[in-house]
Amino acid sequence: MKSLHDPVALARDLIRFPSVTPQEAGALAFLAGRLQAAGFSVHRETFSEAGTPDVENLYARIGDSGPHLVFAGHTDVVPPGDEAAWTHRPFEAALANDQVYGRGAVDMKGAIASFVAAVLDHLSENGGKPRGSISFLITGDEEGPGVNGTKKLLEWAKARSETFDHCVLGEPTNPEKVGDMIKIGRRGSLSGTLTVSGKQGHVAYPHLADNPIRYLVRIMSEMMAETLDLGTEHFDASNLEFTSVDVGNRATNVIPGEASARFNIRFNDRHTLKSLKEWIETRATQAARGDVVCRVDYAQGNSESFITQPGEFVNIIIDAIRDVTGRAPALSTSGGTSDARFIKNYCPVIEFGLVGQTMHQVDERVPTADLITLTAVYRRILDRYFGDGAER
Amino acid sequence: MKSLHDPVALARDLIRFPSVTPQEAGALAFLAGRLQAAGFSVHRETFSEAGTPDVENLYARIGDSGPHLVFAGHTDVVPPGDEAAWTHRPFEAALANDQVYGRGAVDMKGAIASFVAAVLDHLSENGGKPRGSISFLITGDEEGPGVNGTKKLLEWAKARSETFDHCVLGEPTNPEKVGDMIKIGRRGSLSGTLTVSGKQGHVAYPHLADNPIRYLVRIMSEMMAETLDLGTEHFDASNLEFTSVDVGNRATNVIPGEASARFNIRFNDRHTLKSLKEWIETRATQAARGDVVCRVDYAQGNSESFITQPGEFVNIIIDAIRDVTGRAPALSTSGGTSDARFIKNYCPVIEFGLVGQTMHQVDERVPTADLITLTAVYRRILDRYFGDGAER
Repeated sequence: MKSLHDPVALARDLIRFPSVTPQEAGALAFLAGRLQAAGFSVHRETFSEAGTPDVENLYARIGDSGPHLVFAGHTDVVPPGDEAAWTHRPFEAALANDQVYGRGAVDMKGAIASFVAAVLDHLSENGGKPRGSISFLITGDEEGPGVNGTKKLLEWAKARSETFDHCVLGEPTNPEKVGDMIKIGRRGSLSGTLTVSGKQGHVAYPHLADNPIRYLVRIMSEMMAETLDLGTEHFDASNLEFTSVDVGNRATNVIPGEASARFNIRFNDRHTLKSLKEWIETRATQAARGDVVCRVDYAQGNSESFITQPGEFVNIIIDAIRDVTGRAPALSTSGGTSDARFIKNYCPVIEFGLVGQTMHQVDERVPTADLITLTAVYRRILDRYFGDGAER
Repeated sequence: MKSLHDPVALARDLIRFPSVTPQEAGALAFLAGRLQAAGFSVHRETFSEAGTPDVENLYARIGDSGPHLVFAGHTDVVPPGDEAAWTHRPFEAALANDQVYGRGAVDMKGAIASFVAAVLDHLSENGGKPRGSISFLITGDEEGPGVNGTKKLLEWAKARSETFDHCVLGEPTNPEKVGDMIKIGRRGSLSGTLTVSGKQGHVAYPHLADNPIRYLVRIMSEMMAETLDLGTEHFDASNLEFTSVDVGNRATNVIPGEASARFNIRFNDRHTLKSLKEWIETRATQAARGDVVCRVDYAQGNSESFITQPGEFVNIIIDAIRDVTGRAPALSTSGGTSDARFIKNYCPVIEFGLVGQTMHQVDERVPTADLITLTAVYRRILDRYFGDGAER
């Protein structure tokens, strides 16, 4: 099935806007123009919060009945790093060896180009209107603090009584080839800092001091020695990593008064933020004695695990991938967090996009064939979702 | 026995020179003048080394035969800290409530005043010459890096063919009262840094990384779990403290590539620097595997333990203390390091001085009674050391 709208040209247009978080840089204005021309009702919303940069976001909808399928993504990109190291300039969108080079090619302007082309094709072949509603939820700080983007745009939409039935998020999910993997959920993430206060003193008189490092190492050892779980049906095993330990004492003859360790736990549906906080705080409390106090501080932006259970909607995605690529995608919940952690509070969400291998790297690039394949998969999803006897 | 030379006036004179390391500030020039007037041959030597400040030192000798007793000490002092917190200004040498207030009062200008007064008294009563030789070895960076002071002054003296039979170092050794404690040796001290290099990565993909913190905590736990010894005849048990742990990773989603821990071991005569280095390096080597490498770097200025075995010389000190105070001093090797670690390579050395309670603190001070008692003890040491049928 040949696309009427060219996803390669669209991807190159998008890459040329240097929209490094939190800069919109023209990318959302460009999309707004294309979607308005196709009959979408378009909203460009800027959100603010003290301590974070203002971020512009886009919401566009066509149709006014259900079912309502939303495509989500972000036009912001990570910085290009050393531009001199790139084979082609990062915002040039060079086409070479049947590949489009540029920052955001796979994460995720290429996927946005593909789902916009697929939706425009679907509308063209269906008289300009869907049998239900189609929306785009495109944000500008997925690569940043994640404060003024998807989370607030969803709250804004809810306040307008917008409701969504299902969402496809275009993050790069495939390890090797388009069709390898759908993400049907994500592990939760809990970050924090464990701080032990002991009693400072001279190393030659340890009986007059109480070294907090001794207690901190004991707590860390105990936490690392425990197996949180061995994985569940759709999830890998939960995992704890200590990401930093910091004391900062330069004096070789001084026992420090305080020591801290930063941790991150990626966890599955066997745990919750609450249960893990209790697990940690019990260990912190048990370590306390005399002058020794242990406290736990949690980072901003911790998130629960979630899953979109296999079923009708997931089957539409699996079938569309099989129709186009012949592949049977793995259903995964691995990897880092994404904006799906916000969307899952509003409707079932799956993630499917390009191959992630070059994301965030120098010479990020996407084969034109992948853009064409992904566009065809998204188109097939639309046809199945809105088709007669829809299978969702 | 009343002192002919007043140790209180002498201590106050010395305290008035603001000789914060490495400043001589007039203190050594003042001593040089007094000792030259008493017939000493006086040398003022300044030593230099790249990366450390120049330091002036003083060596003064009277007599040209053996036995040769040397009194050692330092006129440099630690900074006064917040001068507004002092009851009397730190370099005013105020006399109040029968105490002399000031930085260096007990550590150790008071002891220098006492041994100078005792020696001048001894010479006055013995026709101006000792039955042997008496020297002063007074340095200016005991509280600093310890590079251009006692160590180099001893090398300088050796190059001039100076030989010493015994040394009394005037560091504050008494916990409560003058006469409580003689230091007959010191534990060794080994400082260093343990650094584990692992493999950096994203916390969501721990199988692609190898967290160095995991290995470092394991090595630290193993080292802390081992008992180095339970103490020996004259020494407390050896002790390991980790003084810092440093990673410095601020990103909550990144497994760091490197982690390090700083340690200090205070050790007795059951160990040597060599045996402890082997103990640590064996653990570092055992931790290595795959991408994980562990290395150990040692700090400057590590020192072996040493002891001046009880016997004739130590008995002179014990008897002198008993004669003056009626107390039986404990023979100890506890506490931090001192310049005795350099002197012990040249002759047997013991440490005996004032009460250390206020050293390095705001309102450092010494009772005038302690200065008079200490002067009497030093005088009794001289009389016993150089007396007929000398007991050494």
